[in-house]
Amino acid sequence: MVKLVLVRHGESVANAANVYTGWNDVPLTEKGKKQAENAGKLIKQIPHFFPSRIHTSVLSRAIVTANIIADVCGFLYLPITKTWRLNERHYGALRGLNKDISRQVFGKEQVLQWRRSFDSVPPKQGSPIIDRRYQKFDQNLMPRAESLHQTQLRLLPYYHDEIASRLLQGEDQLIVAHGSSLRALIKKIENINDHDIVKLEVPNAEPIIYTLDEHLTIMNKQVLN
Amino acid sequence: MVKLVLVRHGESVANAANVYTGWNDVPLTEKGKKQAENAGKLIKQIPHFFPSRIHTSVLSRAIVTANIIADVCGFLYLPITKTWRLNERHYGALRGLNKDISRQVFGKEQVLQWRRSFDSVPPKQGSPIIDRRYQKFDQNLMPRAESLHQTQLRLLPYYHDEIASRLLQGEDQLIVAHGSSLRALIKKIENINDHDIVKLEVPNAEPIIYTLDEHLTIMNKQVLN
Repeated sequence: MVKLVLVRHGESVANAANVYTGWNDVPLTEKGKKQAENAGKLIKQIPHFFPSRIHTSVLSRAIVTANIIADVCGFLYLPITKTWRLNERHYGALRGLNKDISRQVFGKEQVLQWRRSFDSVPPKQGSPIIDRRYQKFDQNLMPRAESLHQTQLRLLPYYHDEIASRLLQGEDQLIVAHGSSLRALIKKIENINDHDIVKLEVPNAEPIIYTLDEHLTIMNKQVLN
Repeated sequence: MVKLVLVRHGESVANAANVYTGWNDVPLTEKGKKQAENAGKLIKQIPHFFPSRIHTSVLSRAIVTANIIADVCGFLYLPITKTWRLNERHYGALRGLNKDISRQVFGKEQVLQWRRSFDSVPPKQGSPIIDRRYQKFDQNLMPRAESLHQTQLRLLPYYHDEIASRLLQGEDQLIVAHGSSLRALIKKIENINDHDIVKLEVPNAEPIIYTLDEHLTIMNKQVLN
């Protein structure tokens, strides 16, 4: 038996302002930091949970949440990998737009489609991202907008190579990521269909614990809050 | 030209209590966190300093200092390596002892010798360390007490392989470590003799900036405070 724990970051400034964020780098609110601390306390109470590695995105709200959890749990010494493959879904031209305003600009139906269809891609952002954290990658291959499906496709190679491989060695793992990137991962892990997945909400800072057998079949799922 | 920045962690609970710490894992004081924040502000002002990686020890006081600096500087997304090779010098049986009391127990001359000689090794701790962060290593090969020289010998392989190699590629590097592990590193970098090195003090959270040429010869050294 091995444990995989998923946590979405605490409330960000953009969550609080109801703004599309995606790859924009926004800080946690004070409430978000408190939520992260609380998530740490919940994770600390999981019996015999000693991950060999923490995995997070290259976005500050997830990294700070991971650091706070690590501090509370006594996991600071653990190796931590930060990868764009665990980033939030890339919202393209919607980045930074208030969700209400986006409905006025693009129409309610269209926005619902972008948010609630597994394969719908929002309008691309015009120019490549100028951001030091992505400069070592080929900008022509990096996303400028993503469907939930595309988010899943770029996330799964990392999951297979770096996370599942360790779980199969009997090593617990901890992932701190984002609402839609976790939704994309959960779809695969739980084998949820394209229709049902878009209804799944992953609340901020509520740890999801999977207990898995030696073939990574789910034996138990529990959400802590 | 490439930049190497060294920082000692902010004040720890043990610094404040005048206690030998070494590999004991003690938290920062509130003052220590403020010092780390200030070190971050100083590092942020270094012109064109964009490290490709942060290197720290597996001890919380250094990791938390590194995380605070990363947050202030906008470096949170950077890969961070945590290695026991950057740990503080292992103080053996002196761990956890108040420095005044150690002089009463072992004598003033003996303690001065342990602290101020490059090759003097304090009494070993009796049993191997029971600590999850070291469990993947052969306990028979791990130190139970170290001279400053031995600290340098276990630190340098990491410096050569993981830090100097990147500097030679033109990548700036940031190291957040400890008083004696930094002293051991500085001895090598600046080619300081066995006698003079023990007089060198590395104050908490005052960044040392080396500007190096393509052969890693020091062109300039600056301490920020």
